Amino acid sequence: MTELQRDALPSTDRLEMFSDGVLAIAITLLIIEVHVPVAGKQGLWHALGHEWPSYVAYLVSFLTIGIMWVNHHGMFERIAHIDRGLLYLNLGLLAGIAFLPFPTAVLARYIRDADNASTAAVVYGLTMIVIGLFFTLMIEYLRHRPWLLKPGVRLEGVKRAARISAIGPITYSVTTLVAVFAPYVALALYGLIAVFFAVGSRTVEPA
Amino acid sequence: MTELQRDALPSTDRLEMFSDGVLAIAITLLIIEVHVPVAGKQGLWHALGHEWPSYVAYLVSFLTIGIMWVNHHGMFERIAHIDRGLLYLNLGLLAGIAFLPFPTAVLARYIRDADNASTAAVVYGLTMIVIGLFFTLMIEYLRHRPWLLKPGVRLEGVKRAARISAIGPITYSVTTLVAVFAPYVALALYGLIAVFFAVGSRTVEPA
Amino acid sequence: MTELQRDALPSTDRLEMFSDGVLAIAITLLIIEVHVPVAGKQGLWHALGHEWPSYVAYLVSFLTIGIMWVNHHGMFERIAHIDRGLLYLNLGLLAGIAFLPFPTAVLARYIRDADNASTAAVVYGLTMIVIGLFFTLMIEYLRHRPWLLKPGVRLEGVKRAARISAIGPITYSVTTLVAVFAPYVALALYGLIAVFFAVGSRTVEPA
Amino acid sequence: MTELQRDALPSTDRLEMFSDGVLAIAITLLIIEVHVPVAGKQGLWHALGHEWPSYVAYLVSFLTIGIMWVNHHGMFERIAHIDRGLLYLNLGLLAGIAFLPFPTAVLARYIRDADNASTAAVVYGLTMIVIGLFFTLMIEYLRHRPWLLKPGVRLEGVKRAARISAIGPITYSVTTLVAVFAPYVALALYGLIAVFFAVGSRTVEPA
Repeated sequence: MTELQRDALPSTDRLEMFSDGVLAIAITLLIIEVHVPVAGKQGLWHALGHEWPSYVAYLVSFLTIGIMWVNHHGMFERIAHIDRGLLYLNLGLLAGIAFLPFPTAVLARYIRDADNASTAAVVYGLTMIVIGLFFTLMIEYLRHRPWLLKPGVRLEGVKRAARISAIGPITYSVTTLVAVFAPYVALALYGLIAVFFAVGSRTVEPA
Repeated sequence: MTELQRDALPSTDRLEMFSDGVLAIAITLLIIEVHVPVAGKQGLWHALGHEWPSYVAYLVSFLTIGIMWVNHHGMFERIAHIDRGLLYLNLGLLAGIAFLPFPTAVLARYIRDADNASTAAVVYGLTMIVIGLFFTLMIEYLRHRPWLLKPGVRLEGVKRAARISAIGPITYSVTTLVAVFAPYVALALYGLIAVFFAVGSRTVEPA
Repeated sequence: MTELQRDALPSTDRLEMFSDGVLAIAITLLIIEVHVPVAGKQGLWHALGHEWPSYVAYLVSFLTIGIMWVNHHGMFERIAHIDRGLLYLNLGLLAGIAFLPFPTAVLARYIRDADNASTAAVVYGLTMIVIGLFFTLMIEYLRHRPWLLKPGVRLEGVKRAARISAIGPITYSVTTLVAVFAPYVALALYGLIAVFFAVGSRTVEPA
Repeated sequence: MTELQRDALPSTDRLEMFSDGVLAIAITLLIIEVHVPVAGKQGLWHALGHEWPSYVAYLVSFLTIGIMWVNHHGMFERIAHIDRGLLYLNLGLLAGIAFLPFPTAVLARYIRDADNASTAAVVYGLTMIVIGLFFTLMIEYLRHRPWLLKPGVRLEGVKRAARISAIGPITYSVTTLVAVFAPYVALALYGLIAVFFAVGSRTVEPA
């Protein structure tokens, strides 16, 4: 807001710690949307069991945010300097991730409602597409500003990373289309994508 | 509370980390006020669409707190020592920012209620004025205590910063007046002010 | 739980960061208890004004936790090593501070209810007494274990600190008694005590 | 998600800070489930007293998460490197701990409901078993990958730790069985187990 503050951008370290904070809070806030059920005549076991979509949605979103944290870290490991563009792209990414508890709650609430299940699953997928696009945008941004990267990082690797980073939005786009017709399948796919990114990326050899 | 603790003020580093924590939590808590809607006969899409003010308010407040984080950082980059006055001014600033989820929720809830929209938009603006005043107060405070600043910081720059820092409260005061008559316009302006501070401050050359 | 983990106590630095985290979250969670009011025929201004105890309670508790953060810091500035006793006393202190949003909400809700106002104000005071006692216990604990303190810290100062630290619980005990008969006066006193600890401790010269 | 991020695993330091953040948030979020009661004809004291299971559950879970934080720390004190397996085991552990506010709230709500008390106490115990298993899994994982440990850590100690770490899941399994028949006894045991781990582990001599 003022000249005093103008040209002093936060360091990558500070930006990463702030991002870590937002991700840690978003991942922990997910539980707030799992509500204590009202035990009816069929008892608490039944009521708790009836809430299974909440647990599944909690697990899928927890794993998803966890993997985003790992990826966010991996990206910043290679960044030496930040500029305003990167700062606000990162803020957009955080806004998307911090938003995730909402579509997670919508999905948990409506997945068993035949009329609205596909809407809920589509909304979840759209949020993931937006988040994935911010990841892609950040890598594209870095690709055109090699002076922001650490000395050892090869531009060749960043170019390939930019291509590979499109996998996220594409996979989520396809799943979102699936969600229109088969919301349960989409829910399972959201979980599988997270597991794939967690396990799959392991098989790729280092650069 | 005790002599053991009396004269040991937190370091700027520690105060900044505590402030970072509060800001990271405040920005992530915003999503709690976006509630899962009840899908009526018109379906979930309609119900979700009906909630658009919640998404807009979320985005505006998220961007606003994000920029405050950047500015707060820029300010502390130039501070070498803190004293009790600065400590409690900073606490006042944090109290204002941590309060923001409340007027954000009020704005989201009442912006479409013709009777109360302007009230809601005014309350949001008043909160922003208070936050802006704390920023200005902190810079004024620093201006009169140059020994708190880092060696390299020129007093000339701080004086100019003090003048420029008044832009925040003034802009928000004008927008709050607009809110009395045109709450939707005010909501748009709150978003534009945030974008302006994010993009605009980029064009100013370094000190 | 296991031998692998047994004798590796967290460092003071790590314990302090964890405590900082809990305090930053507790202070920011206070806003969750300030609810968006329902605007009746008298409009939103009236409804918001009617909620004044929520704002007062928010401010008092925010300032109180903020000062606790400063004092907690001051204490740990002088601690070189921690042991299990100190670790769990600190955990008790954190449990008290993290509990504060609850009595704050109770106070905000019932201060205007003639039948229950004194109860609410007493509950708030009792929580503060417990927190104050944990502070006193920690200093007493340190007084009998000088090997936990940093080399430069004089035992004489710690003894005096132990005496002074009793001011907190005593002041809150008296105010809690006042709360039985005059809850509004007690609310004002809770705020004044916080301001006193913030401003008053400033006048004391360094050890 | 991308090659840019692939092989850059977070450092132990960063993983520990993220875990610290999640634990600090989970422990502080517990208070959200302690709701302001409605004071009926019998007054606020009665209503607050009626809520005693919420306070007990708050304390038990607060102490439990606090001890987990200490143990988590102790474990990471001896780890030099992390790999993907350890990363995702840790994420599973965090998912379990971050889930704890939910069974805590279920227990607080249903412990006095004769029909559902045992269900609530069993659900709490099952969550603790899962968390304990993740601790055991992590130690087992480390036992078979000594290259992840710090140079000074003896494999003998880790083997014993692996055996001892089974105490957690076993103790909670027995208590969960007790919960089927005597939920109040189980609640008391959950508290005692936490106290035992806090105090008891103190008596064991260093490795």
